[in-house]
Amino acid sequence: MIHIFEPILFDTTLRDGSQSEGVSFSIGDKIKIAQRLDDYGIHYIEGGWPGSNPKDEEFFVKAQNLNLKNTELVAFSSTKKIGINVENDVNINKLITAGVKTVTIFAKSWDFHVIEALNISCEENLKLIEDTIKYLKYNGMNVFFDAEHFFDGFNHNAKYAMKTLQVAQDSGASTIILCDTNGGQIPSRVREIIKTVKKEINVPLGIHAHNDSGLAVANSLVALEEGVEQIQGTIGGLGERCGNTDLSILIPILKFKYNLPLTSIKIDKTTSIYNFVMEIANLTPENRKPFVGRSAFTHKGGVHVSAIIKNPLTYEHIPPEAVGNERRILVSELSGKSNLKSKIEELGFDASKFSESQIKSLTSKIKEYEHQGYQFEGADASLKLLIMREFYDYVPDFQVENFKILSYNFGEETSTEAVIKLKVKDKVVHAVSEGDGPVNALDYALRKALEDFFPILKDIKLIDYKVRVLDSSSGTASKVRVLIETKDSERTWTTVGVSSNIIEASWDALIDSIEYGLYINNCSETKSYSNIKM
Amino acid sequence: MIHIFEPILFDTTLRDGSQSEGVSFSIGDKIKIAQRLDDYGIHYIEGGWPGSNPKDEEFFVKAQNLNLKNTELVAFSSTKKIGINVENDVNINKLITAGVKTVTIFAKSWDFHVIEALNISCEENLKLIEDTIKYLKYNGMNVFFDAEHFFDGFNHNAKYAMKTLQVAQDSGASTIILCDTNGGQIPSRVREIIKTVKKEINVPLGIHAHNDSGLAVANSLVALEEGVEQIQGTIGGLGERCGNTDLSILIPILKFKYNLPLTSIKIDKTTSIYNFVMEIANLTPENRKPFVGRSAFTHKGGVHVSAIIKNPLTYEHIPPEAVGNERRILVSELSGKSNLKSKIEELGFDASKFSESQIKSLTSKIKEYEHQGYQFEGADASLKLLIMREFYDYVPDFQVENFKILSYNFGEETSTEAVIKLKVKDKVVHAVSEGDGPVNALDYALRKALEDFFPILKDIKLIDYKVRVLDSSSGTASKVRVLIETKDSERTWTTVGVSSNIIEASWDALIDSIEYGLYINNCSETKSYSNIKM
Repeated sequence: MIHIFEPILFDTTLRDGSQSEGVSFSIGDKIKIAQRLDDYGIHYIEGGWPGSNPKDEEFFVKAQNLNLKNTELVAFSSTKKIGINVENDVNINKLITAGVKTVTIFAKSWDFHVIEALNISCEENLKLIEDTIKYLKYNGMNVFFDAEHFFDGFNHNAKYAMKTLQVAQDSGASTIILCDTNGGQIPSRVREIIKTVKKEINVPLGIHAHNDSGLAVANSLVALEEGVEQIQGTIGGLGERCGNTDLSILIPILKFKYNLPLTSIKIDKTTSIYNFVMEIANLTPENRKPFVGRSAFTHKGGVHVSAIIKNPLTYEHIPPEAVGNERRILVSELSGKSNLKSKIEELGFDASKFSESQIKSLTSKIKEYEHQGYQFEGADASLKLLIMREFYDYVPDFQVENFKILSYNFGEETSTEAVIKLKVKDKVVHAVSEGDGPVNALDYALRKALEDFFPILKDIKLIDYKVRVLDSSSGTASKVRVLIETKDSERTWTTVGVSSNIIEASWDALIDSIEYGLYINNCSETKSYSNIKM
Repeated sequence: MIHIFEPILFDTTLRDGSQSEGVSFSIGDKIKIAQRLDDYGIHYIEGGWPGSNPKDEEFFVKAQNLNLKNTELVAFSSTKKIGINVENDVNINKLITAGVKTVTIFAKSWDFHVIEALNISCEENLKLIEDTIKYLKYNGMNVFFDAEHFFDGFNHNAKYAMKTLQVAQDSGASTIILCDTNGGQIPSRVREIIKTVKKEINVPLGIHAHNDSGLAVANSLVALEEGVEQIQGTIGGLGERCGNTDLSILIPILKFKYNLPLTSIKIDKTTSIYNFVMEIANLTPENRKPFVGRSAFTHKGGVHVSAIIKNPLTYEHIPPEAVGNERRILVSELSGKSNLKSKIEELGFDASKFSESQIKSLTSKIKEYEHQGYQFEGADASLKLLIMREFYDYVPDFQVENFKILSYNFGEETSTEAVIKLKVKDKVVHAVSEGDGPVNALDYALRKALEDFFPILKDIKLIDYKVRVLDSSSGTASKVRVLIETKDSERTWTTVGVSSNIIEASWDALIDSIEYGLYINNCSETKSYSNIKM
């Protein structure tokens, strides 16, 4: 095994990450992410480009009260503007007043870019680098130098690319970061180029890789193996186009595959920081993301499941809890009896009390629902209710008699009302509520009808609502699957509904959500389904 | 640059890919995917495990009429059962009658697995391999041997792992595939191990890598550099847990980074086969997926956009059309004037006719909408309508007066009706329709009201409907963003609506969808917005 040294971890989620399609961080978002990165143990955070927009400028003002423990905040900028003296460059001076000790300066290392994008001579570009770094050094700043497009530059004009590094080193940059800005490099070429660079450059090197070829993590590892000391990346691999080196993958690799101590890093928070950043970025987490994805330790194939039950090492390369993730066993048509039995146990039932014919009947019931478009893989609460309704003398806390929705728009706003009729503890309850849309109106009406009977409902909140069109070729007549995520003060659960009518699908998921919430909070009057282990 | 030979491409989307969480292929799905893989130019397709379930068995029956041109179909199985003679093993005999010439047999190469999961001795496992391969060879089959957990096995007991390969070779396997079944390997270790294997094994080698460390593609490339001849993978990297080597990434790398001819492959169909498989699998395509994702050639940062407009090579490692993808310029608050102007051109307007103050006012308009939760990044048609409504004397083909929705459930099914009132060509039209849910009912009522005036509507179909909850912490009262995708016989367009009422958000997106469809089909009477280039 090749030995590597523990690298400096540099996160640019707040800068390069914010250039992901669909991502727009508010200042509050950025502050929250910075705090989490600090807590996670990242060494440097690139907070933004104060010269490029007022939001980033304000972020650095607010960040001064952050009280960071593990992390140093870094401001980012291009080299000075062409045609003015560096001391008159407003944007460069904003770096000095940003309240940080370290700045990243990026400049072109590819002659093609200098000529084509900047429209200046190669010599002028070297002067920009020299003037900018020297001025910042003179003002007491520590300067990291991002050699933009370094690898492409090296491939086209190695002499000039190397010259830009030399100038940065001579001007006082403390670390030189080699950037694969377009993400087009492969590991074997990265290795060759870094070997050459190491012969001529003495300051520590870093790597900033993009993932356009799916190789950003592999290229960063090769760089580390060749003695590079700083790794730049983002949580979840956010960033321009296909994103940057994914630190939520790279850090676990360093920890578990290269056995580095990574003393500052709380490795078991890796999954939660990934989900947190995705949530703030309003992006759906990737299920199949290595280490941190929901499916990363999820077992489905029958052969795998029966082996995993015997010993998790058989199909898991690391224990899921090491990165704060969890093992999941799926129920699906591919799975055999061993899947279903361990799922039943996972749900809190005693699987040994189920007869072979009950297991068989449950399997066919699940298949029937799956055929209709249900998926219980993500909706344990609905699956649990299904089992209770089928196999236990379970009586829910309320019964629905009927509901009606009325929605109308005569110009500006759309108004929506829901009317519901329920039976609770032998009383008929009739309730009406307005709401922001039909599902919200139904939710409010339901709460209005039930809260007097079950005050605990005040603590039960709907936190997510997802709609998936199942057969998109039928357009708005398609079948839809609705998933509702609900929480109380301690737990979170997910329920599912399927129908070609979005109101009905939502209603089914909503009823399951509330019914399950009441059940786990012990509101149910009938306690005769006694062999359920809770 | 390291030279490599052109590998045999082996796709297991239909077998390992179907073990992805949330994926369940019908036989019809499998047939369609096989046809596309054949057309794309893959050499081998692993169709399934006929011995494990009736669906896979039936697939091989139906596949015999497929008339594949580039591809050979392969059936998959474990070694024979313990304790019976191979000629009496029903599942092994199903391989012989599956109508294929080549089979993949997998067996354990890790002694831990042999003992822990199979509960047999290491010697017995070798006998299973020998008996199974020899029997299949005797029956005229070509046998690929999947050495399951080979790398983990090698790390723990190299001697035994090598012994399994030796037995497979001696028994007649034509290719031995080294599997990183748990996906835990790093490239430098894969390289070391393959070097050792090559010294002792003479038959061609293959690699089957899993992506649990995000390194499946990198590990496959290292294997190729070390002389491995067969690469196994799946479209989109589908597969158990984090999936397999992603062929939609690996194939473009071989073509454009290693400059291999890949004569059978239609490389410019890479993006479309990726999207096709995701569609069939009912998974959302990953935007940031290298080469094939929607964001792979999408430019957002102001610096990038202005350079891309000058010369695409500046921030693109390959031309997007080479893999059948496309360049996109995003409108967003991060972007400068150059983004917006090139977007205006992309939409078919003449940007030079916009004054500086108009550009400014459009920028602030877009920001205002984005602040409300709109995103035009994915909804060009709504952005275009916004520009027409703001800057041209555009008059839509119809005006909405009002609408009402009534939905009710008294037991089984939920019924929904929509009533709408429109003005079309100075006539008031009042229409009512039932539908599967409120959006569908509105869609039908709208068509009922408009089809007599605009018969072209029969060709305009809604093909996708997506709902995104914007602020999930408010539960069902959250703001939602609805995206509707619509097509006519030639084009596809997307429209967006935002509201805390899902009916209103859907209605806004629906109206834009139909209005835009009529506009591009030239139904509009007012043609005075003449400087719009279509």
